[in-house]
Amino acid sequence: MELLKERIIRDGNVKKGGVLKVDSFLNHQMDVELFNRMGEEFKRRFSDRPINKILTIEASGIGIACIAAQHFNVPVVFAKKAQSINLDGEMLSTKIQSFTHQRVYDVIVSKKFLGPEDHVLIIDDFLANGCAVDGLIDLIRGAGATVEGVGIAIEKGFQDGGKRIREKGIRVESLAVIASMDDETGEITFCN
Amino acid sequence: MELLKERIIRDGNVKKGGVLKVDSFLNHQMDVELFNRMGEEFKRRFSDRPINKILTIEASGIGIACIAAQHFNVPVVFAKKAQSINLDGEMLSTKIQSFTHQRVYDVIVSKKFLGPEDHVLIIDDFLANGCAVDGLIDLIRGAGATVEGVGIAIEKGFQDGGKRIREKGIRVESLAVIASMDDETGEITFCN
Repeated sequence: MELLKERIIRDGNVKKGGVLKVDSFLNHQMDVELFNRMGEEFKRRFSDRPINKILTIEASGIGIACIAAQHFNVPVVFAKKAQSINLDGEMLSTKIQSFTHQRVYDVIVSKKFLGPEDHVLIIDDFLANGCAVDGLIDLIRGAGATVEGVGIAIEKGFQDGGKRIREKGIRVESLAVIASMDDETGEITFCN
Repeated sequence: MELLKERIIRDGNVKKGGVLKVDSFLNHQMDVELFNRMGEEFKRRFSDRPINKILTIEASGIGIACIAAQHFNVPVVFAKKAQSINLDGEMLSTKIQSFTHQRVYDVIVSKKFLGPEDHVLIIDDFLANGCAVDGLIDLIRGAGATVEGVGIAIEKGFQDGGKRIREKGIRVESLAVIASMDDETGEITFCN
């Protein structure tokens, strides 16, 4: 998606350790008009799938997922990190290793909101090693629901998450796939 | 806002300890069409204010804030709980006591995204004792920015947060204000 790639080139910052900071428009400050264009594009790419729910994970996936959901006319469910006293009833749970925060999270979704009747599109801001998406797939399958696909804003094509998940037969659509980043020159190249 | 009150009556559940569960449409599963109507209403109520940014706090405020932001044509910034290695540069920080999670969070916003030029609308899902809103006001004032108002989905009118913040001269607009809840009968009454 050209608009997103142009924005990454203009406003993204490459940091040491394979970190791409896009906090001015994607995951701290959020450009909702850009999100709206991204939502349109997700709808275009998954228009053949019978999606009735979008699943994301707190926190930075929520904004993108909610605005995308307006194009699908479906509700969003967000998986929560760690137990909250306001969550009762039966929970689906899994563990997700966070690269960003260097820890393992327990991630939960209420069984009330994910069941065998659901055809789910996963949406998240980043795909790198794929641990978050693996966890969300695990939750969906644990509910007996169907994974219809994965919609990602920015995929780090030089990490193996996207390849690994596609090899499972799951459709992954990433709006920008980064081939390489150089933290000295700031140069970013894209695969697609 | 009648639509939200009707939804609370229909789908909300009153639990012991003053807890109102609205996780089927507001803060776990999210009804984005309802959020869109709420966003319209926030815009109507704050149409006289020169708002150029919306501030919320992760996680459950983000969806409401992003969809509301489409009606204001402004970006959203969400305050983050605890430090992340992907956040660098100078940070504004404050501490917020969470009633739900029974702990104190360090909450941060990058100084890049909140400054003296900003006229900020705070948006959040709940207002009860007001600790989260107090923290967000503290971040905005710490940045030298202006608090234009506070937009809340559900205010617990039987707790003192709303009264206390209004007494500071800050405009608080809550789309549904709960007067009382009974966890035995499930009855919910509204102030407005």
